Amino acid sequence: MKSTLYAVIMAGGVGSRFWPRSRERTPKQVLEIVGSGTMIQNTVKRIESLVPIENVCIVTNRLQKELIAKQLPKIPDENILVEPVGRNTAPCIGLAAQWVFHKDPHAVMVVLPADHIIQNEKEFLIVLRRAIRAAEENEALVTIGIKPTHPETGFGYIQFDDSDDQNINVSEGIYRVKTFAEKPNIETAEKFLKSGDFVWNSGMFIWRASVILDEIERLLPELDVQLKKIASTVGTPQFNHAIEVAYGVLRGVSIDYGVMEKAKNVYVAKGDFGWSDVGSWDEVIRLTPVNGDGNTMRGNVIVKDAISNYIDAGNKMIAIVGAEDLIVISTDDAILICKKGHSQDVKEIVDYLRRKQMNDFL
Amino acid sequence: MKSTLYAVIMAGGVGSRFWPRSRERTPKQVLEIVGSGTMIQNTVKRIESLVPIENVCIVTNRLQKELIAKQLPKIPDENILVEPVGRNTAPCIGLAAQWVFHKDPHAVMVVLPADHIIQNEKEFLIVLRRAIRAAEENEALVTIGIKPTHPETGFGYIQFDDSDDQNINVSEGIYRVKTFAEKPNIETAEKFLKSGDFVWNSGMFIWRASVILDEIERLLPELDVQLKKIASTVGTPQFNHAIEVAYGVLRGVSIDYGVMEKAKNVYVAKGDFGWSDVGSWDEVIRLTPVNGDGNTMRGNVIVKDAISNYIDAGNKMIAIVGAEDLIVISTDDAILICKKGHSQDVKEIVDYLRRKQMNDFL
Repeated sequence: MKSTLYAVIMAGGVGSRFWPRSRERTPKQVLEIVGSGTMIQNTVKRIESLVPIENVCIVTNRLQKELIAKQLPKIPDENILVEPVGRNTAPCIGLAAQWVFHKDPHAVMVVLPADHIIQNEKEFLIVLRRAIRAAEENEALVTIGIKPTHPETGFGYIQFDDSDDQNINVSEGIYRVKTFAEKPNIETAEKFLKSGDFVWNSGMFIWRASVILDEIERLLPELDVQLKKIASTVGTPQFNHAIEVAYGVLRGVSIDYGVMEKAKNVYVAKGDFGWSDVGSWDEVIRLTPVNGDGNTMRGNVIVKDAISNYIDAGNKMIAIVGAEDLIVISTDDAILICKKGHSQDVKEIVDYLRRKQMNDFL
Repeated sequence: MKSTLYAVIMAGGVGSRFWPRSRERTPKQVLEIVGSGTMIQNTVKRIESLVPIENVCIVTNRLQKELIAKQLPKIPDENILVEPVGRNTAPCIGLAAQWVFHKDPHAVMVVLPADHIIQNEKEFLIVLRRAIRAAEENEALVTIGIKPTHPETGFGYIQFDDSDDQNINVSEGIYRVKTFAEKPNIETAEKFLKSGDFVWNSGMFIWRASVILDEIERLLPELDVQLKKIASTVGTPQFNHAIEVAYGVLRGVSIDYGVMEKAKNVYVAKGDFGWSDVGSWDEVIRLTPVNGDGNTMRGNVIVKDAISNYIDAGNKMIAIVGAEDLIVISTDDAILICKKGHSQDVKEIVDYLRRKQMNDFL
């Protein structure tokens, strides 16, 4: 690779599906959900062999900034960008791209969500290097697509063109993108899986900062105007104020919808490295080793005739008698008891709390 | 009734089946388990129309004394007798009988457990009056037997003699006792139920203090020796010290085994007044009204697709998603999650805590 590499880690998510552990101030990415280390710590660690730590940029919000800075002490404070309000991924990425462009107008940036799990890190880095090379050599927008293992309805899909003549490097798993597809229903997901030319949209992107900024200028002119106002302040004391002002007028739009679906030079690097977006407690359970009776226990738990439960006792003591297939998460003020397979509905509990303005629990 | 009436309320139980709500310092009888009022408050209230409050005597232990005195402010402090250690029911009843005998050597005393539920109080008082009359007129030991509704294996049974010539007042449901039977297995319980001459042993007794003391003298001479040492100190500053000394050498024995099974003049007053010893959380649920989806909720509970659960949130917030048939009891430091039908096993959790000396949770 000839260009300087930057990593942009998007850490603005609220992760309401991990309530009551995740809260507005402590969303999924700053928690130890699977294994050791918080998700954002593990995200940074994974790319440290590729990207110098001073080139890692975090985009987050006010509530989380302090905790993230504490969890990642090696990252310079000026590399942590704070959005005053969430406006979806396009403004977030545009802001980071301006910051990177200011550092190095030729830099390639890798955009990574802060809250994903990757089991095979070696393979991930191989795919990432290929994607970086493709972005570099072709001035292209490259996304990483995950080889699907089942007809998942919780992800968007990317259809790629596997005909030889149009592809830039089929042997390395780089394909031209045909279409982006929204989260499908189960029948459509099954068709996608069967077709063989669909991959999961991982939300990871690789491009030169200059290339994505050009595409934003062309496809999202309103966003471009605001980003340019910010651009002139990067590295000055006016930077944060400029962000405040710009975000006050920005509309929320995703990078997929706003740019990727309409841009021309879009590629996908196909990967198969044990990726998960860890979207629910059920997914955490799938990724966590169990003992003989199928119970997973964190903290002080006593089990009697109970099987196949996932129990996190927090700082309480939990006794579980005769029950099975439960997810139990105990925190200082709130306890979740959820039947396995129902953890997608935890989001609705959080929605309810929000409607009822039970802010202490959010 | 010609004799003065006293009530002796036995409140020494530890009620480990209601863990984590019940603890050594707060056993079942001092908790609001069903409806309003604690169980001991309701026990006193039930007999207030029959027994003057200054004639109500409580036998308890050091851990509970203060709380019981606070819950029953109308009971004179000297009426609360403190056992230094539990020695089963015979010493407890013998001690109280000495106390009553000192007040009035001709008094009839009614012995009542502090932790039972009675749904039809009017009928209970009718049966109690009949039992008192039988004890008074025949210088007899009278116990109250509950008409069984199902082949319960958790209670002892009493077989009565329903042949006319031997009974003192069959028309009032007073029968001579044939045998006391220990907790049966299910087959035996079914036979008992079918036979028609077995009733549940409620642990309630009615007799003159003088009569039970005479029987103790005859049948439990070792206990009698110690009780007589205490007797000479009733009403003096030496009373508590005498109890300490006596209990240091007393052996534990139940009034059923030590006296009732061997005594001659023993009767049972048959009753049918919605009695329950509330021996488990499952029994509490049976006695508690439910709402449309079968959930019973105390405190701050959010339910989503969950049915037929009993949830006591304590001062936490509990969200329950997709789960059914659970008993959830949350306290400051411990949480029980028990499948309905398994609450007898809660005792084993407490046994485990005791073995592991996890005293904070006992």
